[in-house]
Amino acid sequence: MNKKRIAIDMDEVMTDAIGRFIELYQQEFNEDLSALRQPGNNLEKVVPPDRLAAVKSWPHRPDFFKDLDAIDGALQAVAQLHQHHEVFITTAAQEFEHSFTPKYNWIKQHLPFITWKNIVFCGDKSIIRADYLIDDLERNLKTFTGTGLLFTAPHNAHVEGYTRLNNWQEVVDYFLK
Amino acid sequence: MNKKRIAIDMDEVMTDAIGRFIELYQQEFNEDLSALRQPGNNLEKVVPPDRLAAVKSWPHRPDFFKDLDAIDGALQAVAQLHQHHEVFITTAAQEFEHSFTPKYNWIKQHLPFITWKNIVFCGDKSIIRADYLIDDLERNLKTFTGTGLLFTAPHNAHVEGYTRLNNWQEVVDYFLK
Repeated sequence: MNKKRIAIDMDEVMTDAIGRFIELYQQEFNEDLSALRQPGNNLEKVVPPDRLAAVKSWPHRPDFFKDLDAIDGALQAVAQLHQHHEVFITTAAQEFEHSFTPKYNWIKQHLPFITWKNIVFCGDKSIIRADYLIDDLERNLKTFTGTGLLFTAPHNAHVEGYTRLNNWQEVVDYFLK
Repeated sequence: MNKKRIAIDMDEVMTDAIGRFIELYQQEFNEDLSALRQPGNNLEKVVPPDRLAAVKSWPHRPDFFKDLDAIDGALQAVAQLHQHHEVFITTAAQEFEHSFTPKYNWIKQHLPFITWKNIVFCGDKSIIRADYLIDDLERNLKTFTGTGLLFTAPHNAHVEGYTRLNNWQEVVDYFLK
C-alpha cells in the first residue's frame, strides 16, 4: 500500500463538540438542544436569536474542549490509519485561544501513538500540505490542495462537491480496502 | 509584486530564546552563558555535561517562552512583509506543551496585524504549504517543499546549502527589493 499523508480535523470529526453544546445548553437554559444533531441543523437554526451570541461564545470558555467525547469509531479508525499511513491531526485551535491545552491533552490521552510532531494547531487550513484532509467544514476543504474528504456532520448535510464519508467505518473502507 | 506566502519561525528568528537561556543560567548557576551567542556555539558546546539535561529541560517550563525579547528588527520587518505578502507564523510549539499560550500572546502583543488564521503551531514542519520558510533549523528546511531560507543563529553557523539571511534587514531586502 502506498503510504499517504492524511490530515484529520478534530471537532465534529473526532470529537463530539455538539455534545458539549447540548450539555451546556441544558445547564444554562434548562432546555434540550438535541435537535442540533439532526441532519441539516446548526446553531443558527435551533438556538433562538437572543441566545445565539452567548451560545456561540461558549467555545471561547477555558473548559469547552476539555474531555470531549470521541465520535463513534474515531479512535480505533485513526489507530488503523496510523498503521498504514502518515496521520496528522490538524485542528483550527487558533480560533479559540483556550483550546490549545485541552486539545493537546485530548490527543495525548485518546491517541497516544500520535506524537507532538504530527499535531498541528492552525487557523486557515490552506497552510496544510497533505495528500488528504478529512474535515467537516467546506471552507477548510475549499482551499486544500490535496483530496478533500467531507466528514458528515449535521451542519454540512447539504454540502455537495466533495467525496463524503458518513462515519469512521467509511473512512477505514476508503483508505484500507 | 507577486504576492507570496511566507512562513516564519519564532525562536531564534523572531524571538530571542537564547536570551532566556542566558537569563535562567545566571539565576540557577550564577554564571554567565553569553558564549551561547557566539557563532558556532550551541548548548552542547557551552554547558558542562552534568548540567546539560537540566538546561535542555527549561523550555518545558511554563514560563520559558513568556515575554521573550524580539530579535533586532524582526517586528518592523514582519510588518513590512505583511503589507506585500501573505505571512504565516509557523512555530514548533508542539515540542513544548506549555508554550502555546505564551507564544500566542507574544504574537498578539507584538504582531497584532497577524490574525489567528495565520498562526500555526506544529511539530514536523513538512506539513507546511508555503512558498518560503524562514527558519533557523536545518531539519525544518530539509523537508520543506518551497524555498527554504536559513536565518542565521549561532548554532547554524556551519550549515550550508541554503540561502542564508543574516538579519532582518537582509530578509526585507530579499523580499522587497
